[in-house]
Amino acid sequence: MHAKLKIGKLVVIGTGLVGGSFALALKRARAVRRVVGVGRTRRNLAAALKLRIIDEASQDPARAVRDADLVLLAMPVGQMAAVMAAIAPHLPPHAVVTDAGSTKCDVIAAAAFAELFRERNVILAPLRETTAAATRLVRRAWETCGARVVKLDAAEHDAILAGVSHLPHIVAYALVNMLARRPNAPRLFGLSAGGLRDTVRIAGSSPEMWSDICVANRDALLAALEDYENELEQMRAAIEGADAAELKRMFAQARNAREKWLVKKQR
Amino acid sequence: MHAKLKIGKLVVIGTGLVGGSFALALKRARAVRRVVGVGRTRRNLAAALKLRIIDEASQDPARAVRDADLVLLAMPVGQMAAVMAAIAPHLPPHAVVTDAGSTKCDVIAAAAFAELFRERNVILAPLRETTAAATRLVRRAWETCGARVVKLDAAEHDAILAGVSHLPHIVAYALVNMLARRPNAPRLFGLSAGGLRDTVRIAGSSPEMWSDICVANRDALLAALEDYENELEQMRAAIEGADAAELKRMFAQARNAREKWLVKKQR
Repeated sequence: MHAKLKIGKLVVIGTGLVGGSFALALKRARAVRRVVGVGRTRRNLAAALKLRIIDEASQDPARAVRDADLVLLAMPVGQMAAVMAAIAPHLPPHAVVTDAGSTKCDVIAAAAFAELFRERNVILAPLRETTAAATRLVRRAWETCGARVVKLDAAEHDAILAGVSHLPHIVAYALVNMLARRPNAPRLFGLSAGGLRDTVRIAGSSPEMWSDICVANRDALLAALEDYENELEQMRAAIEGADAAELKRMFAQARNAREKWLVKKQR
Repeated sequence: MHAKLKIGKLVVIGTGLVGGSFALALKRARAVRRVVGVGRTRRNLAAALKLRIIDEASQDPARAVRDADLVLLAMPVGQMAAVMAAIAPHLPPHAVVTDAGSTKCDVIAAAAFAELFRERNVILAPLRETTAAATRLVRRAWETCGARVVKLDAAEHDAILAGVSHLPHIVAYALVNMLARRPNAPRLFGLSAGGLRDTVRIAGSSPEMWSDICVANRDALLAALEDYENELEQMRAAIEGADAAELKRMFAQARNAREKWLVKKQR
């Protein structure tokens, strides 16, 4: 058994749903002494203060991190590089910096709740230069939030996210655009049913956030997209050849994989 | 106002969810005098009889249609041609034959319920040689079931269904297969979340039924697939060029179209 996790000062940069919920979960678990929230808008910070998600608010990340023990970056990936450059010279040597990447940060802090990560997967992707102690601290913080922590190297992390998250977004956005281009689009969508609705649900995701994520994970996403296009190509060939038996084989393979790995998981 | 619809003898070939519910809705509305159900398995027909979804059961479609007024074909599209050939010589001249195409017919009759079509879209796609009287009878039968009837010509019907239903199935099946091929597939699916789950939900659909449908609607589906691949190609180019602005533009276009035509529809 571990001794109870005790973080002195936690700085959360970006006090949206993810950052706010992380802070709240650690406070509830009494695993942190003080939380400083850093954000771009006063209103959001004021709400986070009022709800006691954070103990102190700041609009200056460089100043906030000066005596931090743990820093969570929880803003859109597009702002990550600039914030990291701004805080780097001001971090104390022992501070551990971690990030919660592909997250919806336009959500206000008021949505934060301590149970957000309970039973959820959190992927840790330490770099080669990350110390074991830093990885351990971050792992324990997430575990204290109730999450299941899985450690992957950065390349595997990128490849997996490209496949299960970034590519599905491309697929959904492209499908909607292709249908919307048709002259009879209103009637067409009007006659659609639950199948289309579910398939393109994630085309409702934030364009700003997802364009940044797709560019940030460019290489892995291009590889996944190529594999996907090859798969479509095989289906196209079978349709062209009116080869119902081959189509049935491919469809059954997909149905079985879904049943084995996705449906079982839900139960 | 119409006079009340009164069908003498309705023959439903395939007493699954769709055929059974159609029969039940018309019986409840007292719009039909007698319903004969035709099926391949005795057990399913016995259940339909017991539940009074049908008044009489038969395993011989040719004999069943001999004095029919309306015949609904409600079995998998793959069996349609054979059944039509079998019944054609036995139909009385006044009989109207219609079909409910892309339907799940492995579902047992016991699932049938009279409200299945209430507020649902039913697309009528009469052929050039279909008489106005036949179209009217079929329209009124569906309206009596509570459905919204939309009349399309066969080409528009095929193009719309290819876009909103058949292509999304291809998209979902291909995405699952591409992920399942990866050596780390179990871990990969294990780390997926709701986004992937919804996007590939329809990859759980019947391979037998959907391979038949895709072949039956081959030309329209190939055209839709080509449009979709072009859309993917544009996104691929933007990712390759790390063009976040262009990606954002395309994603926003999709989000807006979804909001305008799919989300509003749900409300």
